[in-house]
Order: sequence, then C-alpha cells, then structure tokens
Amino acid sequence: MLEPRLIDHLKTIVGAENVATDRQDLLCYGYDATQMEFLPDAVVHPGSPEEIAAILKLANAEQFPVFPRGAGSGFTGGALPKGGGIVLVTTRLNRILRIDTENLVAEVEPGVVTEQFQQAVEKLGLFYPPDPASLKFSTIGGNVAENAGGPRAVKYGVTRDFVMGLEVVLPTGEIIRTGGETYKGVVGYDLTRLLVGSEGTLGVITKIIFKLLPLPEAKKTMLTIFDSIDGAARAVSTIIGNKIIPTTLEFMDHATLQCVDRRFNLGLPAAARAVLLIEVDGDRDLIEKQAARVHEVVKPLGLVEFKVAKDAAESEQLWKVRRLVSPSLRDVNPTKYNEDIVVPRSRVPDVIRRIDAIATRHGIPIVNFGHAGDGNIHVNVMVDKEIPGMDEKAHAAIEEIFRAALELGGTMSGEHGVGLAKQPYIPLELSPVQIATMQSVKKALDPNGILNPGKMFPV
Amino acid sequence: MLEPRLIDHLKTIVGAENVATDRQDLLCYGYDATQMEFLPDAVVHPGSPEEIAAILKLANAEQFPVFPRGAGSGFTGGALPKGGGIVLVTTRLNRILRIDTENLVAEVEPGVVTEQFQQAVEKLGLFYPPDPASLKFSTIGGNVAENAGGPRAVKYGVTRDFVMGLEVVLPTGEIIRTGGETYKGVVGYDLTRLLVGSEGTLGVITKIIFKLLPLPEAKKTMLTIFDSIDGAARAVSTIIGNKIIPTTLEFMDHATLQCVDRRFNLGLPAAARAVLLIEVDGDRDLIEKQAARVHEVVKPLGLVEFKVAKDAAESEQLWKVRRLVSPSLRDVNPTKYNEDIVVPRSRVPDVIRRIDAIATRHGIPIVNFGHAGDGNIHVNVMVDKEIPGMDEKAHAAIEEIFRAALELGGTMSGEHGVGLAKQPYIPLELSPVQIATMQSVKKALDPNGILNPGKMFPV
Repeated sequence: MLEPRLIDHLKTIVGAENVATDRQDLLCYGYDATQMEFLPDAVVHPGSPEEIAAILKLANAEQFPVFPRGAGSGFTGGALPKGGGIVLVTTRLNRILRIDTENLVAEVEPGVVTEQFQQAVEKLGLFYPPDPASLKFSTIGGNVAENAGGPRAVKYGVTRDFVMGLEVVLPTGEIIRTGGETYKGVVGYDLTRLLVGSEGTLGVITKIIFKLLPLPEAKKTMLTIFDSIDGAARAVSTIIGNKIIPTTLEFMDHATLQCVDRRFNLGLPAAARAVLLIEVDGDRDLIEKQAARVHEVVKPLGLVEFKVAKDAAESEQLWKVRRLVSPSLRDVNPTKYNEDIVVPRSRVPDVIRRIDAIATRHGIPIVNFGHAGDGNIHVNVMVDKEIPGMDEKAHAAIEEIFRAALELGGTMSGEHGVGLAKQPYIPLELSPVQIATMQSVKKALDPNGILNPGKMFPV
Repeated sequence: MLEPRLIDHLKTIVGAENVATDRQDLLCYGYDATQMEFLPDAVVHPGSPEEIAAILKLANAEQFPVFPRGAGSGFTGGALPKGGGIVLVTTRLNRILRIDTENLVAEVEPGVVTEQFQQAVEKLGLFYPPDPASLKFSTIGGNVAENAGGPRAVKYGVTRDFVMGLEVVLPTGEIIRTGGETYKGVVGYDLTRLLVGSEGTLGVITKIIFKLLPLPEAKKTMLTIFDSIDGAARAVSTIIGNKIIPTTLEFMDHATLQCVDRRFNLGLPAAARAVLLIEVDGDRDLIEKQAARVHEVVKPLGLVEFKVAKDAAESEQLWKVRRLVSPSLRDVNPTKYNEDIVVPRSRVPDVIRRIDAIATRHGIPIVNFGHAGDGNIHVNVMVDKEIPGMDEKAHAAIEEIFRAALELGGTMSGEHGVGLAKQPYIPLELSPVQIATMQSVKKALDPNGILNPGKMFPV
C-alpha cells in the first residue's frame, strides 16, 4: 500500500484532480484486453514530461513501482499493476505537435489515438501505415511501446520502421531525446529501437518523431478463395515471387470460414478451405496491372473464387468476411485466448496442420487467421471455462502451439508482446544468456527496478 | 604489450598460422580509411564463433583489449587498436550460408564482401539494397556494425532495415542469437538493432540474417541540372510530393561540378549550379511514367538540362559525373576530410550556404555532394597539410559544420559513425545524460571493458 504522504506528494506533482484512489478508478485501470486484473494503489494522470520525471524521481527515492499505460488495449497485460504501485496514464499527453509536409515527418505525444493520427496525416496527403486492429482506441505511445504491427506490415513494416526519434523519461526520472529528425543517423547506440517494443519497462515515452510516406494514389482489394491451405500459402509466395508486394495478405483458415459462415450465412463455396484477402496500393495503372497478374498467377493453385472490388464500396464488402471473424468467434466458446505466433512464410501450412492436430488432440476449437504475408498468425484458442478441465487443456495446447512455432523457426509473438501473459513461456524462446543480457540492459537503465517491474522476463 | 604466453594461448585457440605479430602484419591492420594509425600487439584471424568466444573469454580473464575488424574500410577509425591489444579480423568467416528464395531471407557470415552478397542474391532474382560506396571491398559484418547506408537509402532504408537477426559473441565471450527468421517478432528487447551501428563495441557479429526484396524489374536514370541549389532542393521535395520516391537522389553542388569539369572536361552548361542524379526503379511501365512526371515537375525549378538514359549504357554515362567526383577531388588539395552530416531534407540549401560561408571564412575549399533524398551530405574539406596552419583551420571548420548541421535539426553522421574521428565532437550532439545512458548499456554488456574500449564515447 502506498502511504498517504506519498499520495499527497503525487498530488503536488500533477494536481489533486489528476490522482485517483477511489476503488472504482482503481478497478478501471486494473485490467486490459486480457482476462487479468490487478488493483493499483493509485492512478496518476500527468500532464507533461516534467511531471512524469518528478513522479519517477519520487518512485526511485521512495521505492514504489510505476506502470505506464496508454489506452489499456494490450493483449498481454503489459500495463497491469501486478503487485501494486501506481498506474501512470499518458492519455493527457495527446497533441499532434506538428506534421511537416516537406520532410514527411510528424511529432506527436503518446496519448494520441492511432486512428486520429492516421486521419490527420491522410488529410495532408501523407501516410502512416501501421494499422493494429486496436487502432480506433489504442494510443500511439502504446503502439510504440509494444511495436505494434497490423495487416499492412507485409509491405510497409511495423511501428518500429516509422519511429525516427523519441523523447523518453528514463526509469530514473531523467528526460532524454533519442534518434532525431533525420532517418539516417549513426551517432551513438540506437536507443530509439531499444525503447520500441520494450513494453514500458525501459522508459516512459513522451514524444515520438515519426517518418511518414506519401499517401498511395489508389488501392485495389481482391478476395481469393482456395480449396486448400497449401494453395493459399503457395499463392502468397507466388505473388511475391512475381515482384508484387501487396499491402495486405490476410488469411483465414477453414475453421475461421466455417465460423463466419455459420453465423452470418455468407454463402461461401462448399470447396472453400482458405481465403486470402489481398490488397495492393500505389499508382492507379500499376495496381490494375497487378490485380490482373495476381489473378493469373493464383489460378493454377486450386482457386475456387476470385473477386476484385471495382470501388471502395465493393472493397468494403470484400473486407466484410474478415471483419466478421471476431464477432463470430463468440459463438464457438465464450473465452478466447488470442495468440499471435509467427513462422517463416513458407511454414504457414505446416504450422496450421500442427495446430489442427493439437486442437483435435485436446478437443478444443482453434481458429486461425492473420497476416499470411509475414507469417504472423492469430491463433484463437476458444474455451468454455464452465467445462471442467477445458481451461487447463487450453493452456497445454497454447504451450504446444508456441513450441510448434519455435520448431518451425518462428516466434511466440509478432505483435502482442510478452507482458505478463507470455512471461511463463519466455524460456521456450530465449536462452538463459539472452534473458540475462536483456535483464542486464534493464538493470542498467532502471537500477532500482521501478518501471513496470516483474514484466517481460521471468522473475 | 601482450605477454608471449598470451600470444601462445591465442595460437592454441586459432592455430599458429592465424596469429600474426610481425611488424609488417601489425602495420597492415593498424590503419583504415582515416589518416590514423595505431599498432596492435597481435592480429588474430579466428575461423569460427567458438574461437571468437574463446578469445574474448581469454581477454576478460587476462584483461586485454580486443578490436574487431572487417575489411578496415571505415572512415572513422572504428576498427583501430588505439592503446594496443589485439585486432580480431572476421574475414575468414566469409560464407553465404543460405539464400531462401521462398521466404526472401539470407544468412551470411560477417566476412562476406557486400558486393559479392548483392551479386549472389541478384542472380536469384532477389535484392539487397544497401549500397555503401565501399561495397566492392567492405564486408557485410562491418556494414552491420556501422549501419552502412548509401544512395538507395532514400527509397529502401539503411542496413538496419534489412537485418532480421544476428548471431553475436558478447564481449564476455557468450554466444547469443538475437532476432530471428521472421520480420515480425516482439519477444524481449530488440538487441538486434542495439547491435546494429554499435561499431564493434557491444559484440562481435558472427552471423547475420537479412531480409531481401524481389529484384526490381527495371530502372531508369535521369541527370538533371539546375541553375541554383534551391532549385535542386525544391526538386527533391516536389518529386516526393508527387508520390514518387526515387531509388536515388544524388546531389552535387557547384564546387563539386567545377572540380569534375576542370579535371575531366565534361562540358557542363555554364549556368549549372547543382546537379541531381535521379534513378527510379520498379515496374517497367511505371518508371517510364515516373520519368516523364519527374521532367514535368522539375521544369519550372530553374532546370538547365534534363537527360534521361534510354538503356544501361546511357545510364552508366549519366552516372559518370558522380563517379568522377572522388578522382577529381585530389586536384583541389591532397588531404580530404570526408564528413557525412545529415539535415532534414528541406534544410539542404541552408546547410550548403552555411558550409560555403565557413569555407570562405577559413579559406579552405569544401566540396559537397551526397544523398539529397535523405539530407545526407558528404562534406569534403580539402586540405594541403604543407601549408602552415591549414590543418588547424580545417578542424575548426569541421566543428563549425557539425554545429550548423545540429542547429538545423540534423546529425554529425548519417553513415560513417563515430569511431575515434568524431569522438571529440560527441558532446556537441549528445547530452551528458544520453552519453551516460549509452555508457551504462556498454557497461552492462561489457563489464570489463574488453571490446573496442575507448571508442564511440569520450573517455
């Protein structure tokens, strides 16, 4: 429990109205998109980097833990105050500071909602590609802390690829800048990318300098249905082998299609075993040519159906099957464990086959969809906790899925991070020396273990 | 001086034939592309990561410094054994281990020469874009250690953007893997990118997993001559504003053009004040369209001449003016200090004007060319050391140039790194807290200060 004098001290830093200790406030900031919940001692809403610095200096002097949080939309509990301490919410820092249309650079505060930032730059003819599924509510600071991805990563890369520089309050309360205004820059260590994806354990991000691109002139959506998962997988390699890198290559497996069709009666062809939703963007003439070429090269691969959208409305219609996946899942079972393994692109059919076998063996429905272009698959293990033993079986299945991904040269997480949820599995992926090296980096930046302690690495 | 028993011990690790202590060998590995020279106590050529690990363990136990080195083509002395110790040469690790054409991934050892790697992947229809000027002799491991760039960075990014994973011998002699086979991956801290650009101070790279791209179908070269530097700079923003991101946007200033024309009689138009050499690549139809559009949009910007290459031979002809720059410089003065500042794209004319003023004030010829698309300018301060006081003036000028770049929101180095050459200037760019943070990261990974000690940061 945080002593009352420390609560008072926090109030002098950020103003009494920005410190909450009511149970209902604590509850609100004690959960995220996982099933986990932990009550903090207080929730603090600082209004500036200097206030965050003062909070962290106090935390170091008085030895209490601080858990930075954006919108709390994370899937792995990275912002949860396990063990108590204060939740430091960055949503008051929510200004887009500038969008430089000449240098294609923007500077923003961490509390800006991702979609709002995207819309702001698009109005100026610019483009910020990363598009995590949470973009309507997640904050851009959280995206940077988790190195968020999304469907467009196959062509454009992940959040990391757009971060040029940061302002960060270090765990000790010092404010530093990392990187800068220029994309090239090799003076000193790359602290910028060390911070990206560090899940709020190495610093509190207070400003971000993003690289932007020109907004593509047009885009074209195609829905392709295959009679086998192998056909869909070969389509991915064949398209890229033909020098076409689509913006998105979204994949849905048979279980996913059954799920959506059962609920929404889309009337998918009976032979449908896998769907690829393909989008290309860029020059108007080029994407017409690419769409025709995609059709031509995927035809021999067990293609059941090929639809290409003529306009934005038709494109929206094609995306419908993908957007209906999440609402359909609830029909399968009430609880969803949403993992996001990655395997090398060519191993997608192998890993799907292994997951199907794991699902059968444990008698648990598992639904797979995701980003086929970069091998990042969302594995949804669907559980009814009312059925005795099912939750335990699900956890056994998840560990087997992680092992399968790792055996095939992949990773346990492409976008969601480690947080608390994947912490127990870390030794499957990282060696003791890798873990020790990361722990020594953490210790170097946070000698008192103040910032988001007990996260990421096994303790 | 390294004791004879340690030399003997090194011989038992790598074999006697792979340890050199003759003065002529020591001389060969004591210099690089800078003017600096330091004699090591021994030069060691290990043949495997395990041998490197054994060397570093011995170095920790016996407290002697180790300086990793690729081809020694660096411009900042990053591989030089200042203070003595051993030079650890990675050129025996020179195999391309695999090129995976399905997943567009390659795994290579650090001693592979960059151009050989590029040619190997291009034979298979793939593309590794980073193209530092040294690519015919620099090793890919050195490119990673320095985060090498090159003309194509404006479209494709720098070496960092292609490194997916590493095998590294840590300063303590432990071998770890970082990153992996997949582009997405967020388990643990991004040690991969912490290592990229760390200039051999945080680990010895023994394997690199690279991301590759499909080789573009075609390319098109344009030579554009402007009557002012501002016209050339506005051309850069205008082209990008028209949603065309060229592969290269190489820029040469008036001093550079005079230099080349004086030596090689190219017959450049009298009104020529700046040249942009522009290349676009990709789909054959698209680049035709882009070349026409480039011509159209740069016309009103003081265009003196526009030439577009019809074929590879004509393209080579247009590149000639750029390739002749280096050989022409020697006519100006015998010694060249080659800096590589970066400013935001829009500030290129400002910084060139400031550099011209600095040149005039000190009476020293300064010739500027480089990568206008990303604001990375090679500033060549040309000195005759026989003229008393000129070298001192040059160093004063260089410091002023760095200050100008920083004032305009830039950095002292986009590609060359810090090494020994820029070490004295580090406090101009990095704050004491930034430096301390980087030093603590170094200390965490290299507690005994064995690997490339005394580099990068002021000691």
